[in-house]
Amino acid sequence: MSGPDFSKAELLPVIAQDEATGDVLMLAYMNAEAYQETLATGRVCYFSRSRNKLWRKGEESGNVQEVKAIYFDCDADTLLIKVNQIGGAACHEGYRSCFFRQVTDGGENFQTVGERVFDPKEVYKKN
Amino acid sequence: MSGPDFSKAELLPVIAQDEATGDVLMLAYMNAEAYQETLATGRVCYFSRSRNKLWRKGEESGNVQEVKAIYFDCDADTLLIKVNQIGGAACHEGYRSCFFRQVTDGGENFQTVGERVFDPKEVYKKN
Repeated sequence: MSGPDFSKAELLPVIAQDEATGDVLMLAYMNAEAYQETLATGRVCYFSRSRNKLWRKGEESGNVQEVKAIYFDCDADTLLIKVNQIGGAACHEGYRSCFFRQVTDGGENFQTVGERVFDPKEVYKKN
Repeated sequence: MSGPDFSKAELLPVIAQDEATGDVLMLAYMNAEAYQETLATGRVCYFSRSRNKLWRKGEESGNVQEVKAIYFDCDADTLLIKVNQIGGAACHEGYRSCFFRQVTDGGENFQTVGERVFDPKEVYKKN
């Protein structure tokens, strides 16, 4: 065993972390094919559960994730990938990180704490 | 909606990140009950998929995770919790982080890069 074990599940969760800042950017999933493409290209390729196909992150927005280092956990069923996030934003809503909302008041409320880098309406044009 | 949406899935993935160092420590899962207990106690409580019950992290080892901040992502189906990791190690194998192995040689090999904080044989005594 030299890496993540896709015999445990068809899709394994993948944490993307900004290599420079340490910010956790997003969580998505890979199947074995997406993992192999990520290794081969040096750019993160996920598997989209909603679209049921490979998801070459940044293909539309240009905000690709360059692979800096890949780690896998003690159970070999989760990946951590340190990336260089091109464009500065991982989230399709334009935030640097998908985790832009913080739970407050003992779980009763939340506040937006993330930094918005782009306006999604400008990036994802519906033509 | 003021937090993670457990109507999307019974179990949501949870990323634990060391608040002080920014290290990603582990990924595990919560159900709504584990989330409520985490909010109420200020200590991270997961749901163990293998044991099929609440998993009060550190109950046996003493390496509890004190909640510092809770975030949820754009789809409200993943949590990020910044923690103070008591004992300095999140992984049951004694490493600071569960992601102690790095993929090398284009996916052909790996190397252990993590720091071992304790000897699991000393902590989890099978009496």
